[in-house]
Amino acid sequence: MPIVHGYDEANYVLVMEDLSDLRVLRTVLNEGGGCGAASTAIGVFVARLSFATSDFGLSSAERKALLAESVNPELCKITEDVVLSEPYLDHEHNHWHPDLDDIAAEFRADAELRTEVADLRHRFMSHAQALLHGDLHTGSVMIGIREDTEVLRVFDPEFSFVGPIGFDLGLYWGNLIAAESRARARGDLGDHGMQLESTWTAFESEFRRLWPRRVDTFFDDGYLDRFLTGVWQDSLGFAGAELIRRIIGFAHLTDLDTLPDATAARHALRIGRELILRRTTLNSPADIRALAERLAAVDATVGP
Amino acid sequence: MPIVHGYDEANYVLVMEDLSDLRVLRTVLNEGGGCGAASTAIGVFVARLSFATSDFGLSSAERKALLAESVNPELCKITEDVVLSEPYLDHEHNHWHPDLDDIAAEFRADAELRTEVADLRHRFMSHAQALLHGDLHTGSVMIGIREDTEVLRVFDPEFSFVGPIGFDLGLYWGNLIAAESRARARGDLGDHGMQLESTWTAFESEFRRLWPRRVDTFFDDGYLDRFLTGVWQDSLGFAGAELIRRIIGFAHLTDLDTLPDATAARHALRIGRELILRRTTLNSPADIRALAERLAAVDATVGP
Repeated sequence: MPIVHGYDEANYVLVMEDLSDLRVLRTVLNEGGGCGAASTAIGVFVARLSFATSDFGLSSAERKALLAESVNPELCKITEDVVLSEPYLDHEHNHWHPDLDDIAAEFRADAELRTEVADLRHRFMSHAQALLHGDLHTGSVMIGIREDTEVLRVFDPEFSFVGPIGFDLGLYWGNLIAAESRARARGDLGDHGMQLESTWTAFESEFRRLWPRRVDTFFDDGYLDRFLTGVWQDSLGFAGAELIRRIIGFAHLTDLDTLPDATAARHALRIGRELILRRTTLNSPADIRALAERLAAVDATVGP
Repeated sequence: MPIVHGYDEANYVLVMEDLSDLRVLRTVLNEGGGCGAASTAIGVFVARLSFATSDFGLSSAERKALLAESVNPELCKITEDVVLSEPYLDHEHNHWHPDLDDIAAEFRADAELRTEVADLRHRFMSHAQALLHGDLHTGSVMIGIREDTEVLRVFDPEFSFVGPIGFDLGLYWGNLIAAESRARARGDLGDHGMQLESTWTAFESEFRRLWPRRVDTFFDDGYLDRFLTGVWQDSLGFAGAELIRRIIGFAHLTDLDTLPDATAARHALRIGRELILRRTTLNSPADIRALAERLAAVDATVGP
C-alpha cells in the first residue's frame, strides 16, 4: 500500500507517498509491456491482507468489530449491481461491441450461467471471510523500478469491506486474462499465460507460510486445504464475472476497447463463462492455461 | 416470539407476555409427551425470521446495517468454543459418562471429523446469511394450549446474530434426536422420528412461499434450490455438532443424563458423527430416519 505520511482531518488533507515515478499496470500491459513480478507481489499482498483480517489472524471478538466497522453498503451495492447482476439482464447501463450482439443475447438467456452468477453474488454479499481491497483490477496497481528493485503499490481501496477472499484474486485475474486476450489478438503474447499461476502460487505459499501463526489452532491442516480450494474456486468464478461485465456490462476496459475488432473480447467472454460454470472442476493454473489455449484454437478455426 | 408489552429503559423494566400456562418443550418430551405441532411451527418461525433478514428480504443497505448492529462477539465465542471446538479436544470443560470413554477418545482422534467440524465452525463464524435465534434448542421453546389451539413461543434470544440459517434448524434437530434416543431407550418411541421432516417441510414450504416476495429478483429459482440444499446440509452438520457437544462436551441434556445408562447417548453420538460426515450425501428426512434406524439396529445387536 502507499505510505500515508500524514492525515489532517480538520483540513481534509491526506499526504501520501509520491507515486509519480510509477505507472499503472494496465497502461504498461496495454503498451505491450509485461507484468514483471507484479503477479507474485499481488498474491503475497492478498495472502497477507486476508490472513491478517480473517478468523485465522484475528481473535473472534476483533473479527466481529472489524466486520461491523467495515460494512460498506454504497460501494458494495455498486459491485452487486454492475459486476454481479446487470450484465446478465437487459439493463440501460449495459453496452457492447455490435459484433457481440449474438453472444451478449446468448449469455442473457443462459439459465445455468445466471444461477451460477447468483451463487457468486450471494457469496459476495454473505461470505465475510476477510478484509478485501474490493476493486483489485490492473488499474488499481502501480509498478516501477526504484534503486534497481521492482516496486508495486496497490491503491484506490474505497471498495474495501469484509468479503470472500476470492473476489480480490478473481478481479485481478479477470483483468490479466483480458490483457492476455488483447496480446493474443495483437500477436505479441508474452508470459501473460503464466500470471494467474504466479499469483496463485504466491498467494497459496504465503497463506501456508502464515498458517502456523493462526490465532485459532482448532482449524487444522485438513481444513486449510479445503479452505484454499474454496478460495481458488471463488477466484475463478469472480474472474469470469469480471471478464463478462467488462465486455457486455457498464464499465469497459481500454485493453479490449482500443482493439480494431471484437475478436479478443469474444474470446475473453468465452473464457469468462467457462470459469464461472466450471470453477469446481478446473483444478489448477495449468487447467486455466489449457482452457485459454483450447478456446483460442476454436476462435482461430471459426474466425472472427 | 413472546409479545413485549413494554420496555422502560430508564428503570430496566421489560414487561412480556405471561407464559406461565406454557411448558418448556424439553420438559414435555422428557416426561414422554409429544411435540404436537411444535416442529412445524419452528420450521415456519425459522423460515420467516431468516427470509426477512436475509439478502432476499432486506435491501443490500439494510442488510449491512443489520449485520453491523447484530454482531455478538461474547456469546458467539461461547458457541465457537463449547459447541464447535472443545468437544473434539482435551479440555477441562468436557465430561461424559464413564461408559463412553472409548467413543469420546475415538471422536477426539478422528481427523476427518475434526476437519468437518472446523468447516462447520468457520461457516458459523463467516457465513452471514440471516438473523438467527442462535440457541434454538428444545429448552428455548414453550408450548401449550390456549382456547383449544396449540401455541408455541420461542424465547431466550440472547445468542442472536447474523449467521448460517442451518444453525437454528440444526440445534433444534440435534435436541429432537436426543429426545428420540431417550424415547427409544425407554421403549416409548412415538412420532419422534417424524419431527425432523415436519420441521424441514414447514421451513422449506414457508421459504418457498415467501420467495416471490424477495426484494432482489436477480436470485432466480435455480439459485433458491441450491441455497436450500446448502441450508439443509448445514443443518445436518450443526445437528451433529449439537448432539456431540451435549454428550461429551460442557453442557449436557436432562434428556440423556437422567437415563440409567449411556446406551441412548452412544446411539446419539453415532448419529451425530454420521450427520456431520455425511451431510452432503444424506439428501432427505427419510435418509435421516433410515440412518437412525440402521444405527439403532446395530446397537441392539451389539448391546450396551
